[in-house]
Amino acid sequence: MSQNNAPSESLDQLRHSAAHLLAAAVMELWPDTKPTIGPAIEDGFYYDFEFAQPISEADFPAIEAKMHELVKDWSSFGREEVSAEEAKKRYAHNEYKLQLIEKFAEEGQTLSLYKSGQFVDLCRGGHVDNPAKALQHFKLLSLAGAYWLGDEKNPMLSRIYGTAFPSADELAAYLERRELAKQRDHKKLGKELDLFVFSETVGKGLPLWTPRGAAVRRELERFIVDEELKRGYLHVYTPDIANLALYKKSGHYPYYKDSMYAPIVIDDDEYMLRPMTCPHHFELYLSRPHSYKELPMRFAELAKLYRYEQSGELSGLLRVRSFCLADAHIVCRREQAESEINGVLDLIEYIAGVFGLKAGENYHYRLSLGDRADDKKYFKDDESWDYAENVLRSVLKAREAHFVEAPQEAAFYGPKIDVQMKNVNGKEDTAFTVQYDFVMPKRFDLKYVNEQGAEEQPIVVHRSSIGAIERVMAFLIEHYGGAFPVWLSPVQVKLLPIADRHLDYAKQVWAKLHALGIRVELDDRSERLSAKIRDAQLEKVPYMAVIGDKEMAEDQLTLRQRGQKEQSVLTVDEFVKQIQAEIAKKQ
Amino acid sequence: MSQNNAPSESLDQLRHSAAHLLAAAVMELWPDTKPTIGPAIEDGFYYDFEFAQPISEADFPAIEAKMHELVKDWSSFGREEVSAEEAKKRYAHNEYKLQLIEKFAEEGQTLSLYKSGQFVDLCRGGHVDNPAKALQHFKLLSLAGAYWLGDEKNPMLSRIYGTAFPSADELAAYLERRELAKQRDHKKLGKELDLFVFSETVGKGLPLWTPRGAAVRRELERFIVDEELKRGYLHVYTPDIANLALYKKSGHYPYYKDSMYAPIVIDDDEYMLRPMTCPHHFELYLSRPHSYKELPMRFAELAKLYRYEQSGELSGLLRVRSFCLADAHIVCRREQAESEINGVLDLIEYIAGVFGLKAGENYHYRLSLGDRADDKKYFKDDESWDYAENVLRSVLKAREAHFVEAPQEAAFYGPKIDVQMKNVNGKEDTAFTVQYDFVMPKRFDLKYVNEQGAEEQPIVVHRSSIGAIERVMAFLIEHYGGAFPVWLSPVQVKLLPIADRHLDYAKQVWAKLHALGIRVELDDRSERLSAKIRDAQLEKVPYMAVIGDKEMAEDQLTLRQRGQKEQSVLTVDEFVKQIQAEIAKKQ
Repeated sequence: MSQNNAPSESLDQLRHSAAHLLAAAVMELWPDTKPTIGPAIEDGFYYDFEFAQPISEADFPAIEAKMHELVKDWSSFGREEVSAEEAKKRYAHNEYKLQLIEKFAEEGQTLSLYKSGQFVDLCRGGHVDNPAKALQHFKLLSLAGAYWLGDEKNPMLSRIYGTAFPSADELAAYLERRELAKQRDHKKLGKELDLFVFSETVGKGLPLWTPRGAAVRRELERFIVDEELKRGYLHVYTPDIANLALYKKSGHYPYYKDSMYAPIVIDDDEYMLRPMTCPHHFELYLSRPHSYKELPMRFAELAKLYRYEQSGELSGLLRVRSFCLADAHIVCRREQAESEINGVLDLIEYIAGVFGLKAGENYHYRLSLGDRADDKKYFKDDESWDYAENVLRSVLKAREAHFVEAPQEAAFYGPKIDVQMKNVNGKEDTAFTVQYDFVMPKRFDLKYVNEQGAEEQPIVVHRSSIGAIERVMAFLIEHYGGAFPVWLSPVQVKLLPIADRHLDYAKQVWAKLHALGIRVELDDRSERLSAKIRDAQLEKVPYMAVIGDKEMAEDQLTLRQRGQKEQSVLTVDEFVKQIQAEIAKKQ
Repeated sequence: MSQNNAPSESLDQLRHSAAHLLAAAVMELWPDTKPTIGPAIEDGFYYDFEFAQPISEADFPAIEAKMHELVKDWSSFGREEVSAEEAKKRYAHNEYKLQLIEKFAEEGQTLSLYKSGQFVDLCRGGHVDNPAKALQHFKLLSLAGAYWLGDEKNPMLSRIYGTAFPSADELAAYLERRELAKQRDHKKLGKELDLFVFSETVGKGLPLWTPRGAAVRRELERFIVDEELKRGYLHVYTPDIANLALYKKSGHYPYYKDSMYAPIVIDDDEYMLRPMTCPHHFELYLSRPHSYKELPMRFAELAKLYRYEQSGELSGLLRVRSFCLADAHIVCRREQAESEINGVLDLIEYIAGVFGLKAGENYHYRLSLGDRADDKKYFKDDESWDYAENVLRSVLKAREAHFVEAPQEAAFYGPKIDVQMKNVNGKEDTAFTVQYDFVMPKRFDLKYVNEQGAEEQPIVVHRSSIGAIERVMAFLIEHYGGAFPVWLSPVQVKLLPIADRHLDYAKQVWAKLHALGIRVELDDRSERLSAKIRDAQLEKVPYMAVIGDKEMAEDQLTLRQRGQKEQSVLTVDEFVKQIQAEIAKKQ
């Protein structure tokens, strides 16, 4: 997916060389360790070992020191081809390497050993020329268990992760970003800020949103729905389950079968948890005839969808088994496609902008194309593919949007624009898509009556405005580091009475703000003000309102904004005006 | 369910007598008909016949005329006991009656014939003394197919429905109510006003809400959520599916098994479409420890639930297979139960009041009690039952609420208050409930820490504020006859330009109102104004705004309110102010 972030070849070589160095250091320190494999990966490298005794991350400094010591003598990687027999002799006591040797030999691969300093490893190559010079800026990051060859029936090995960069600055920048990402991890913040939880009894990959998390989600959902209504979308509600016949009719079933859950038999029919919304909206369109005057019809829904994920793949709100997609299907004439897709991108950019995200900076577009030669993967209709791809391309060009073209990444029913979003780790992924579809209208026999009274077939634009609520929530938690803007904050104001004698007045203020729909909490504990302030800061509440004698006497609040040292004093009414204005402006 | 509407014994006798009279008239008109059975039912009576030739409702006047003619000679019902042999001889050519005779004989019942005028029928009795005098106010209502003995393997008979009343006034009132109910039927209006549809391909009992219906639903849902938030409810989102283990833990499974759908196997576990929300909220409560200071905690959710209904029982939005319940579970101390339940009834009465419904008039309360002697149906804990029943009773008494007590109608985990609602037919049913639960907290081991730092067990109040969204929508469609108040109307304003030259200005007005979130439509057809007005009236739009030369020149609208003849002229800004005020006041 992440073409633009793929590490360059030389970076891969540097990191793979670092894996050799790691193995060399480990073998020096613990000679009866069995080394296995050590590839470069997206952000660094790892090496899997079978240790004779347990090690921990506390051993990393010693390993790193040994690496720095050894690398001084690594002026090159020497290559030597060996026969399978020779290789087996060398690794007679290492069943992992023996397995690899047999496999490579069966495949007819040439076997090679690489030597640097005193360390030799079975390897296919891909190193830097002069490690002593190039390989100075590395860091071991973490230790994890990993099954040999990723198979849980095999022994569990110890995997040491590390990274390496050409320069000290790059390494430092990466480590800083990594530390920030760790602190902002949505799973960690979700727990600390009490936004969502999981229950083993309810089931894996099925988040439960606490009152605080639900407040954010509700704001988000209403924002999306209201903005879409304003832009002429027709919000609807359709069922979360449907007869299997529906997904066979749409043609989705063969493509989505593996990610759909097992059917629920009701009477004599098989019902499915829906994996997508489109056929539901098409059935709604089919419920009555339509005139060209009604087009475009933009059916939208906050649609709960269900897709199978392996339990090992589940991760917080990012990978779940049920999610709520801000989905829509625009039924329109072919000639309307360009302006509709333009409108969709306007909406996407508007919504992203509310969160401070800019196209070309925090996200960019990818034009995913079909393949006229591949009739199996893509519906055969060259003229429609050409037309559709040109529409998408010309919309992007007219907007002067940054985009890359990705051949053979289209949906089976047409080309699409992928919205590629970077997360807090700097990694890029497809957040959601805008798709041009000329196949579903055929399958569902969608029609409208044109100016001449004759039936014509519309096309359909599938799109999301923000993606799945769960996923965008994970993204926003990390984006804001849990410090949501006022309009999204689970708690917008925390009232901090200085002493118990200020409690009654604080309760009145609470009641006033609460009645106005402001999310306000009162810290009524008999704690010192400094403790109350510290806790409110930990909760990342945007406004702390201190209430003491003076405030009570003059119907005022002493306000501290999150992240600011200065205080301001406002009357309650002035504060209400200010915060309401901020909320209205989505600040 | 509907104890208060059960027809009296004498009304049953009158109607059963009318069924005899109907059969007599049919046999006079079509002598080779086979009569079968003719009982009194809730709103009248029916008689099932096997006709030798098809009849239709067009034959009703002739049948009614014959009934009026015959009844003059019916001064009494004469009874004669007969042997099975004699009875069989009389009905030698009527296999239906022969079946009944054999069945009655097997059961050892005395067989009796009843004779009035020249008509004799096999019957167990229960008639008026003097039909000629008592039986004058009757009406045939409809014709339907009905399987003999309700079994679809048996022949299809023709069922004639009718009703009878002691007086002409009562009959007229009933017929008027019936006509009104027919016109207001939510299935009929749902179609006419394009509020919801069904799709055979999606599946039975799974409504799809059109943009118009969805607009009403969205208003309704936001109203409920906002009102509940205002009253201290904590709205959450929990998954619509869960591991079967959850419903076994809650103890619901044995009670709900038959109304739950088949499990979905995911990896090695069985997942269920949830039939209720409570265990989900309890898992949320369990996600962290709680202090007494946090109680009551009022977890609320618009929760999608799934319960099996036989396909023959499905009916519009009233009986569906998936519905969205405005659900909540209040976790509180035992001593807080009374004020919490009082608060729930306040909320219910407030919300009902917004729809013009009054407690004791449009709905009333029923106190459903347990049975200390029935340990199978009810959890054994006499002291808790006594306490809980007293709490509910004393809340109702203190409010001076009208209520009836219903023994043995409690849930298995505690007593409840049922909200009994009358529909447009005057029929009463349990719309939703408020339940006191002392069992689930035990099963889930719910705890809070009290003032002394010790753990205590809370109780739970299960409640809805308005019931299922589908059901309340069906109710409201019928209640308002499709003419929703402004705040709920799918279309709030229809702009009616008089001529095409007013279209541009009308579009500007449309854009202005739409941007303000007012649901406005523009009738841009080149039709005469009268046709546009007629169509807007059929759509039951609350405001029609006529736009002609004068309006254009002075930035005005000529407004016609639904159901009113007088027009008013307002500037666009004045109108915006007026309609926004009405919407805010839920008018």
